[in-house]
Amino acid sequence: MSELYAVLMAGGSGTRFWPASRRAWPKQFLTIAGERSMIAETWARLDGLIPPARRLVVTAASQEQLVRDALPELAPENLVLEPVGRNTGPCIALASSVIARRAPDSVQVILPADHVIRPAESFRATLAAAAEEARASGALVTLGIRPTYPATGFGYIEAAEETGRRAGHAVRRVARFVEKPPRAKAEEFLKTGRFCWNSGLFVWRTDAIERAVSEFMPAVRDALDRMSRGESLDALYRALTPVAIDVAVMERASERRMLAIDYEWNDVGSWDALAAVNPADAHGNVAVGGAAVVSEDAHGCIVHAPAGQVVALIGVKDLVVVHAHGATLVVPKERAQDVKKIVERLEKERGEFL
Amino acid sequence: MSELYAVLMAGGSGTRFWPASRRAWPKQFLTIAGERSMIAETWARLDGLIPPARRLVVTAASQEQLVRDALPELAPENLVLEPVGRNTGPCIALASSVIARRAPDSVQVILPADHVIRPAESFRATLAAAAEEARASGALVTLGIRPTYPATGFGYIEAAEETGRRAGHAVRRVARFVEKPPRAKAEEFLKTGRFCWNSGLFVWRTDAIERAVSEFMPAVRDALDRMSRGESLDALYRALTPVAIDVAVMERASERRMLAIDYEWNDVGSWDALAAVNPADAHGNVAVGGAAVVSEDAHGCIVHAPAGQVVALIGVKDLVVVHAHGATLVVPKERAQDVKKIVERLEKERGEFL
Repeated sequence: MSELYAVLMAGGSGTRFWPASRRAWPKQFLTIAGERSMIAETWARLDGLIPPARRLVVTAASQEQLVRDALPELAPENLVLEPVGRNTGPCIALASSVIARRAPDSVQVILPADHVIRPAESFRATLAAAAEEARASGALVTLGIRPTYPATGFGYIEAAEETGRRAGHAVRRVARFVEKPPRAKAEEFLKTGRFCWNSGLFVWRTDAIERAVSEFMPAVRDALDRMSRGESLDALYRALTPVAIDVAVMERASERRMLAIDYEWNDVGSWDALAAVNPADAHGNVAVGGAAVVSEDAHGCIVHAPAGQVVALIGVKDLVVVHAHGATLVVPKERAQDVKKIVERLEKERGEFL
Repeated sequence: MSELYAVLMAGGSGTRFWPASRRAWPKQFLTIAGERSMIAETWARLDGLIPPARRLVVTAASQEQLVRDALPELAPENLVLEPVGRNTGPCIALASSVIARRAPDSVQVILPADHVIRPAESFRATLAAAAEEARASGALVTLGIRPTYPATGFGYIEAAEETGRRAGHAVRRVARFVEKPPRAKAEEFLKTGRFCWNSGLFVWRTDAIERAVSEFMPAVRDALDRMSRGESLDALYRALTPVAIDVAVMERASERRMLAIDYEWNDVGSWDALAAVNPADAHGNVAVGGAAVVSEDAHGCIVHAPAGQVVALIGVKDLVVVHAHGATLVVPKERAQDVKKIVERLEKERGEFL
């Protein structure tokens, strides 16, 4: 029976969680929900399904130590370092090439390292069903998120007919992948009941993704081949064109299936999302990170500050208050998206802050 | 000609500037307006009028090092330490006894160390005029602040007839001292034109205040006498009843005069007062303490954080945002008075924070 491998993609470096996230300290290393960093939560979510020895992590070379510190169970040979980020296409191809050498008849589960997915048992059951489907059909399988509102910030997957069931999970053929839609379009999608959000979660046989890389990403295949013959990864990887796996492979492959996630999933895209993935106090305030929060007539606020700090809120409502790494941020929840503007200004005006 | 001495009273330990002020780091050591701590500003305000060698500081024994650090010009023999705080009555009597031994025919200027008074030249001119009046008349002289609004947070001084002018300053007899009035009363006071705010600024001959201490604070006189005969200040001082100089002496003395301050005076009673004593940016935001402040659509805010810190404000209005000593405070300006509630709760619930 083909073994199951996991690939955690942990190379991102977002700015939307400034000042807690920094270029050298990205979101996946933050504690956003639960007691551990997002990457440690992602790792633990696989316990019981995939043994640590078969979990790979792909990350930026600059984040090697952060990953080692966050994941003490990670075997050194399972840490795959990208010299630079080239989006998910080359990242997945690189990880797959490592697995292909080690276990060519395996099945791979590809996971972003910075999402909240709960409960873990439900997620493992979905992954197991998806792996069974990938194994049996040889199709490229993706996990779609059952949409709960007409989001304009995600891509969508349109499902076609059901091809059968795996361990109680409906499996559908994929009709098409759709880029982030405008609001009206998103509302239409929601009404049809056929669309899911594109989560970036994939399950496939190693031989299937290897074939797809050769067919749809020939330059990447060539680079990986040359690398395996001893050329330096660094120069080869830098020369690659960044491309998402969705665009490079999923939109073009013929055999694609989707299973749906209809439990809690959150990509926690900005500070305001902390309210959705953490318990609130009696006044609707959410505190994350370990700081002591004292409030007087404060409601619906989100606080993120490390243990040992104190945050006091008096008479304020629906604010995000963050203190981290010598910086303090105050912004209404509804404007949390604007944090990136501040980061851009800080980078431009005072390069030292990121 | 009798020499002029200054007594800076620096013993206070307020909670209204938490988290920047702490029990062990009170307001007078904060930079609130200008480039230096309030006590250093108070000290510098005397330059040209009273030489450093004739400036005394009375403070709590626990704040000795803070005072020395803040005032490098302060002569060691001019630092008077109170074992405990007993309000301004005993504090002034203690300082005066030191001056009386050194220069019995001198004139004293008594100043709180945590007020903003500008311009310094005007203040020195008023002090010089008050000293001339005290010297010539032997009266206890106080400086009243010409009220700009019907404040309910200050005591008032009612002036009687003008007794003459000193260096261009009108000198009036004092009719009475009035405790903090209710709003309606304060409005009446303002209308009469006869009332000034009680600033806690006094000027008097050393022999005059020494006589007043003997007459109105006999227990304090006795303690100071016993101390001068070798008894321990500590036990004697602890046994004294706390009393303000206004209540103990000024309300009861017969020869009292007042000169008015009609330029900038601010006792900076809480965070919102920073807006009145500091320049604002184009959006009405005031930043004090040295932190880098970046704002996007933020208006009328007050920021206090030390150099090296960054504070980012997005889409907020009329907020006070403070970061100091591992704590962050966010409160609307109009509720800045409520900071003491938070401090009381922190003291009660988690004694370690103050």
